Amino acid sequence: MADARASGIVDTADPRAVAAAWSRLAEPADPAAGHVVRALGPATALTWLLDAAAGPDVAERAIRRLHGDRPGLPDELAPARLLRAVSRWAPRTRGLDPRRELRSLELLGGTLLLPDDPRWPRALDDLGVLAPHCLWARGEPDLAGASTRSVALVGARACTEYGRHVAAELAHGLAGRGVAVVSGGAYGIDAAAHRAALAGGGTTVAYLAGGVDRLYPAGNADLLRGVLDAGGAVVSEVPPGSVPSRVRFLLRNRLIAATARATVVVEAAWRSGALSTAARAAELLRPVGAVPGPVTSMASSGCHRLLRDGAAVCVTDVDEVAELALPAGDGLPDEGSGAGARGGTASGRDVPDDLDGVGRRLFDALPLRRAADVASIARTAGLALDETRGALGLLELAGFAVQEGGAWRRAPSGRR
Amino acid sequence: MADARASGIVDTADPRAVAAAWSRLAEPADPAAGHVVRALGPATALTWLLDAAAGPDVAERAIRRLHGDRPGLPDELAPARLLRAVSRWAPRTRGLDPRRELRSLELLGGTLLLPDDPRWPRALDDLGVLAPHCLWARGEPDLAGASTRSVALVGARACTEYGRHVAAELAHGLAGRGVAVVSGGAYGIDAAAHRAALAGGGTTVAYLAGGVDRLYPAGNADLLRGVLDAGGAVVSEVPPGSVPSRVRFLLRNRLIAATARATVVVEAAWRSGALSTAARAAELLRPVGAVPGPVTSMASSGCHRLLRDGAAVCVTDVDEVAELALPAGDGLPDEGSGAGARGGTASGRDVPDDLDGVGRRLFDALPLRRAADVASIARTAGLALDETRGALGLLELAGFAVQEGGAWRRAPSGRR
Repeated sequence: MADARASGIVDTADPRAVAAAWSRLAEPADPAAGHVVRALGPATALTWLLDAAAGPDVAERAIRRLHGDRPGLPDELAPARLLRAVSRWAPRTRGLDPRRELRSLELLGGTLLLPDDPRWPRALDDLGVLAPHCLWARGEPDLAGASTRSVALVGARACTEYGRHVAAELAHGLAGRGVAVVSGGAYGIDAAAHRAALAGGGTTVAYLAGGVDRLYPAGNADLLRGVLDAGGAVVSEVPPGSVPSRVRFLLRNRLIAATARATVVVEAAWRSGALSTAARAAELLRPVGAVPGPVTSMASSGCHRLLRDGAAVCVTDVDEVAELALPAGDGLPDEGSGAGARGGTASGRDVPDDLDGVGRRLFDALPLRRAADVASIARTAGLALDETRGALGLLELAGFAVQEGGAWRRAPSGRR
Repeated sequence: MADARASGIVDTADPRAVAAAWSRLAEPADPAAGHVVRALGPATALTWLLDAAAGPDVAERAIRRLHGDRPGLPDELAPARLLRAVSRWAPRTRGLDPRRELRSLELLGGTLLLPDDPRWPRALDDLGVLAPHCLWARGEPDLAGASTRSVALVGARACTEYGRHVAAELAHGLAGRGVAVVSGGAYGIDAAAHRAALAGGGTTVAYLAGGVDRLYPAGNADLLRGVLDAGGAVVSEVPPGSVPSRVRFLLRNRLIAATARATVVVEAAWRSGALSTAARAAELLRPVGAVPGPVTSMASSGCHRLLRDGAAVCVTDVDEVAELALPAGDGLPDEGSGAGARGGTASGRDVPDDLDGVGRRLFDALPLRRAADVASIARTAGLALDETRGALGLLELAGFAVQEGGAWRRAPSGRR
């Protein structure tokens, strides 16, 4: 198996080839790979691995030698664990040839981002040893810029019309505020979010579970091409040619959760994969939002679970999503468009809001049509006579009460 | 004004007459009335008031004398405040005749409950000086019993079909668990809750803002008669003949919040009065729940506000409401009917739940149709060869994998 290196197929002097090799050899979020790369550096670690992968005896010797040379290795690289890791990686050293995958990416006009690239989203560093070795990106490669102002909108593939509608509203609104929409390129909520972000003239980034050579799922290929055309990006941590396995879907979610400033679950059933994205975001101390829905809809039960567990904040519109994701003062709505404006459409109560307790009580006690004397109004309101007199004068000034020959009634409602 | 006592119309030796008089003289939740009754006892306080109410000069003298006799009176009864309170109560001493109102109640077959009655809901004591002086009750007067296992279901009068449906589901389910449904007898959510509690064979209690002689609103009179017929109760803290003013509606909410073990807002717009019930319940350290709804429905915006503010727990079904209201182990659903059962209707993911990380990864890598050799499966899964061999054996034992001539594939999904 050492013939991979022997034949010079991996040029360990080329950091791109090394990172590409690691992304091929180790499954996403393999902690041993993260630790060995952190301890030795990616190139030295790869050189060592290609030696060690030649066979079980060789591996054991290589591990003993490594521990001899580097006494401070972490527990995660203890001999038994490292042996297991090497035997996991070794089968993949056969036929390893990152040049081939890099060429595929190049043909697609893509870019390989390494962690030291200024376009690398620094937020991924919070993943520690579980951070990806590299990112295979198509489209606009400045993922750092997109990550700074971004929100992940995630949810069920089997969404309802309601979920699709809300995802689209939120994505469109975020696009209008210059916030990038991050999602997973899947059917359902993901697709609605990407599509509406595009329609809103915004940037959107899709993190795929498989290689970026295959715009998966096939039914979203046109949409994902649209993402690329509009200056967005389609990104994966596994090389071209990798299949999107179920485990990779779940692990891909950590990239979405880490790069976005906040994660919002738009619609998710009780065991939806979107809940794993929310869990990863919470672990990374990113704000998590959940959109409520009808309790009669199983498609919202996962969102309600998050709300119930206190694992997510209830978000109902783009203002609330923006508030979750952006620092105060950055992209926050003005008073008029937020909560304040809502009062207008609220319940039918038409009590003037700016009355104090006494004024409100008195306003209530005022007859609508036939004016009443102060004493009768005071009795009805349960207020003292002088208090009633004073407050009636204030109500009159404010346009809520009218006086007719010493008796009082409410001002006609159109009056004010 | 002292002629009320002079003419003997209030028999201050009769605790029922005294309490009835206080409920007529002071508006609900008048803190001065609560304090003076607490400090002097209801009868002495009333005797004193009927003296003091004869005129401003008399009142000032009476207050001076009172403060002379009782040096430790609380700040809430400082002379200026007490003078204001007396001038508030005095207009109502004219024509005061609790016998008349007690006779009305008697004709309706009702019961006046005083705070020392064993049927008095002790939970009201948590209101302190804002507790009612008495309760005018029609129907079953054991409000203590009804309060012990009870949930308040409240919400908008202008509710949607969705809200009505959820209120009915919850009330019916609570009735089935022997939990009394407390509400306000209003249109919309209140009516749906009372009605479904009756339909479910349960007990329900309506706290009205006006006197119990008038089953208000008129459109719910038949429903409220149904509540009485079914062994429920219709209750008010104001005497028969009192009109349900807006302020009384809001103050009535504190009785609902205090007597129920928990308050659930089923549907409420941004400024619904139901939110005041929730606020009172929270102040009294009662659990508060809110039912989420579509974010596109303004009728749920108040519920979402509560969830967003962390002022309510998200509740979506009767199990969750019961969990909120009842002590652990009392009326809680068994595992099968709760969260566990929900998984069955959840998202389409069909990964066996009981596989560990390696097993799940391997299961993913197994071909569905044409069996593959161990080495190829290990590569696909990113697992070591020996690890793969061991885990395949376990998968086979568990019925997830089948072997065909040394090669492996997934077990047909019906197999297990």
